[in-house]
Amino acid sequence: MKILVYGAGAIGSFFGGLLSDKNEVILVGRAPHVHAINQSGLRISGLVEKVVYPRACTDLSDLEEQDIVIVTVKAYDTMKAAEAIAGIVGKETTIVSIQNGLNNISILDEKFGDRVIGGVTSIGVTHISPGHIRLAGKGDTIFGSLRKNLERLRIIVEIFNQSGIESRPTENIIGEIWLKVIVNSSINPITAIVRKKNECIMIEPELRDLAREICEEATVVARTSGIMLPLADPFQRVIEVVSATKENFSSMLQDIERGKKTEIDEITGAIVNQAKKIGIKVPINETIWRLVRALSVN
Amino acid sequence: MKILVYGAGAIGSFFGGLLSDKNEVILVGRAPHVHAINQSGLRISGLVEKVVYPRACTDLSDLEEQDIVIVTVKAYDTMKAAEAIAGIVGKETTIVSIQNGLNNISILDEKFGDRVIGGVTSIGVTHISPGHIRLAGKGDTIFGSLRKNLERLRIIVEIFNQSGIESRPTENIIGEIWLKVIVNSSINPITAIVRKKNECIMIEPELRDLAREICEEATVVARTSGIMLPLADPFQRVIEVVSATKENFSSMLQDIERGKKTEIDEITGAIVNQAKKIGIKVPINETIWRLVRALSVN
Repeated sequence: MKILVYGAGAIGSFFGGLLSDKNEVILVGRAPHVHAINQSGLRISGLVEKVVYPRACTDLSDLEEQDIVIVTVKAYDTMKAAEAIAGIVGKETTIVSIQNGLNNISILDEKFGDRVIGGVTSIGVTHISPGHIRLAGKGDTIFGSLRKNLERLRIIVEIFNQSGIESRPTENIIGEIWLKVIVNSSINPITAIVRKKNECIMIEPELRDLAREICEEATVVARTSGIMLPLADPFQRVIEVVSATKENFSSMLQDIERGKKTEIDEITGAIVNQAKKIGIKVPINETIWRLVRALSVN
Repeated sequence: MKILVYGAGAIGSFFGGLLSDKNEVILVGRAPHVHAINQSGLRISGLVEKVVYPRACTDLSDLEEQDIVIVTVKAYDTMKAAEAIAGIVGKETTIVSIQNGLNNISILDEKFGDRVIGGVTSIGVTHISPGHIRLAGKGDTIFGSLRKNLERLRIIVEIFNQSGIESRPTENIIGEIWLKVIVNSSINPITAIVRKKNECIMIEPELRDLAREICEEATVVARTSGIMLPLADPFQRVIEVVSATKENFSSMLQDIERGKKTEIDEITGAIVNQAKKIGIKVPINETIWRLVRALSVN
């Protein structure tokens, strides 16, 4: 299969790197990372140790139509990504979003319809240096779609599993995406504000209470919006994720410390906006949203 | 008059320094500040330029009974201060609290009864270096008491005014203290979290909205508790204070950056605790409280 990863940061490079064993993979990313990969391959360390040699480039010019385009850009860039990839997407191309944030697959769906598959992953990959990433936490990756494109879904799950990426299909991808956003909204903004490792949410009772209340507000928004969450108590997942990533500094905190834009609008902001739409008050999430926006480059 | 200032930081040194023109003043503070004052006097710059020579010391041993003890310690030290000053307080001594926080005068009242006068000041003084403070903003100082000790109140106002500190009595000192706590709770914690100058609350619409909501929650707590606030809309005062102090970094932010304890429990925490007592929800103040506690040494 011809697979292009659009937005080859840590996660995108990891998927593309593993898929390159059985497929013709192109990673599209930033210049330093791309040059390092073209020079000496992509080094994966941590729970997997290998060097792989996918093709890498910084833009899409001169590229032909792909079988699969995996979109792994930051959520605030999904709209731009949809436009950028249009030239390499044909009728048979499947577009797979594996991103944070609530609205990615509906943005892609608007442009590409039933060619879109949504994905949610719980693996943890971090960027070490150009050309070098680290698998810090294992987890599974779930795929599903808004429409009846079961054949595309089956193929995506099969291709990922064939390359050793544990995957499964779901009939409730929207519920999975919401659950991930709820969990992210309960962890990342707190760690970004207090500038501590994820473990702070386990260690400090007040931050744990705050995370729980953020989670409860967001859960009410999801349920009132008719979303079937795959867990009765999403806060259980918050605690699982914090336990599994306790030594990590969240990407949102890293973005703030590096003066980069955060995904706060697509995570907490998306929950607050949905709450407004359905007439529910979420004062805690709204407060958190405002504070992180004030801390971020927007 | 024999006047002792207990907790001679910026504000306490300023009052003691000015009062020393017509009174016998002792400043009790930290060693470097005390030594500098004993060596070369207290230098006041900014809107007032003078050097004054009050006596200064680091503790109360060997000191005799005072006519007036002005308490200007941080609010979390009021209980300790009440014990420390007991030996220099006689039947005729008047104890004046000029502090932030909601509960100082009731703590002092419990020990000293009708000898206590409460004060609220809007002057802005900053500590420049040991022995050197700066008057950054003018303002008036208001005194009042929980009980009928009008003669003590009259004398305090007179003594302050005689030394050029604009002062007036109020019959509603509790309302003034609440107003100041509401204003502080609407400004200081936000600036401490986002680590910006006070002006951020004027410049960034989201922080202004957040300040307004903090203020509104706190105002409901005050009114429901039967407090008569001296202003119909306390947020008006928030905007006035921010305008007058826009270049300042709040003391709460400075405390966090220096790894020092903050007054968050005595400001936002006091509002949240009062809200709980009367059965009102203040989710925004509670969130802010938790975040600043997580940022502070407690």
